[in-house]
Amino acid sequence: MRGYTQDKDAYLKRLRRVEGQVRGLQRMVEQDDYCIDVLTQISAVTRALQAVALGLLEDHLGHCVTSAIEEGGPDAQAKVHEAAEAISRLVKSRGGRGDVRPGQVLRRPGRCPARSGSEAAGGHARPVHVAGPSWLVSSP
Amino acid sequence: MRGYTQDKDAYLKRLRRVEGQVRGLQRMVEQDDYCIDVLTQISAVTRALQAVALGLLEDHLGHCVTSAIEEGGPDAQAKVHEAAEAISRLVKSRGGRGDVRPGQVLRRPGRCPARSGSEAAGGHARPVHVAGPSWLVSSP
Amino acid sequence: MRGYTQDKDAYLKRLRRVEGQVRGLQRMVEQDDYCIDVLTQISAVTRALQAVALGLLEDHLGHCVTSAIEEGGPDAQAKVHEAAEAISRLVKSRGGRGDVRPGQVLRRPGRCPARSGSEAAGGHARPVHVAGPSWLVSSP
Amino acid sequence: MRGYTQDKDAYLKRLRRVEGQVRGLQRMVEQDDYCIDVLTQISAVTRALQAVALGLLEDHLGHCVTSAIEEGGPDAQAKVHEAAEAISRLVKSRGGRGDVRPGQVLRRPGRCPARSGSEAAGGHARPVHVAGPSWLVSSP
Repeated sequence: MRGYTQDKDAYLKRLRRVEGQVRGLQRMVEQDDYCIDVLTQISAVTRALQAVALGLLEDHLGHCVTSAIEEGGPDAQAKVHEAAEAISRLVKSRGGRGDVRPGQVLRRPGRCPARSGSEAAGGHARPVHVAGPSWLVSSP
Repeated sequence: MRGYTQDKDAYLKRLRRVEGQVRGLQRMVEQDDYCIDVLTQISAVTRALQAVALGLLEDHLGHCVTSAIEEGGPDAQAKVHEAAEAISRLVKSRGGRGDVRPGQVLRRPGRCPARSGSEAAGGHARPVHVAGPSWLVSSP
Repeated sequence: MRGYTQDKDAYLKRLRRVEGQVRGLQRMVEQDDYCIDVLTQISAVTRALQAVALGLLEDHLGHCVTSAIEEGGPDAQAKVHEAAEAISRLVKSRGGRGDVRPGQVLRRPGRCPARSGSEAAGGHARPVHVAGPSWLVSSP
Repeated sequence: MRGYTQDKDAYLKRLRRVEGQVRGLQRMVEQDDYCIDVLTQISAVTRALQAVALGLLEDHLGHCVTSAIEEGGPDAQAKVHEAAEAISRLVKSRGGRGDVRPGQVLRRPGRCPARSGSEAAGGHARPVHVAGPSWLVSSP
């Protein structure tokens, strides 16, 4: 159960559309489309990704961070700080190579505090990722 | 023949990797990965796309725009202005919905002035796109 | 009492430095400095402003938004949504003209819920701004 | 004589307005304005700076880079590459600390090739900056 779970289908649909746009970019390059048109399309894809990120972030603040604050304790401020760092990466995501370390992605398998308590009771059924996924290093 | 033609394979490879990353994002959402990890990965994909755009832009300035200036005439300043607008879209690509209109992508099938003159002589063998590609409006 | 009040002096110091950097930009233009050097310096000023914004945002989440959630009620989700919109403006702040309307700045004189209850008890002593400040429309 | 010289007054006016906006930000913080309002205003200042940068860049491409290409020689491609790097910094200007080194600002006192040849003839009357300006390290 994550902050975005209730909108999961909508997010998947948007990400599939982004995938289609990226394939469209490949076609444009393959058929020697005009540079400026390729650039315009890259701007559009970037904006689409950014919209997904902003939606996920609001869901995260409204669910995971809110629950952590409601539960109180030191975890609340940790969640706020973690969200602030994610915002910083988004704002800077055109930024220097160094601000997101490769392999960092799955290093913090954070938990969205369960409102119902069921996840807290049941523990982490989900297997913890121990390595970066293959699609991070190889192209399909 | 475009500004990026000599590096076409490298661009295609990078775009295929971006496509893989976007599929990876879908997997992350499908398996309820932690929101913050999804956001971190979106930042990485955005940066990868941006790097492709910056490469294409330098190629465009170094080939198409350079050739237009060398040939002289009114086309040169038009090319400079067109490039400046593309840069503006890149810089603002997180920007307002309005700054890239859908369907605008292929409306200006600009021409990279041929250094050898062969393209200018032969005309536009490539069929001109008259409508937005399907992947712009539907998800695959 | 705002989320950033405890760090007010540090923020003022940083903003005064940004002001000095902007005056430096004017000197560069006045003395016909090289375009690329002016651009490099604008990038640096933009980054400095962004760092201030990210600091303010974390303070806001950690104080105002946290307090609203702790107090509960409908105000909590409103605060989360308001913060998400501010994040969106930051991420897009290179964006289209339309995403921040002039005059909008002071239209929502939001309140950072007072932890101690003193502000809630005392009400809004601070006069509410009814018009945009002069520095928004005229240059000094 | 720089690419922006003919619009110098307009650029100075815009930069003075940005300076006024930054002073307005200081007033907002001094009088404990609401965090979100301060953030909204920072987004507006960032956009104003970006607009100045995009204008300067187009002027640079249309004058300095164009002249270098018209004159030909190895300097032309160096100018294109230099412009591409400046664009990269602009696109990434929210980016990692590392992508613009402090002190780098005036290190490349590049020359905008003179169309009339007068500057080339007269040489560099302007003293070359050897150190970063004081406003980069101290607040006024």
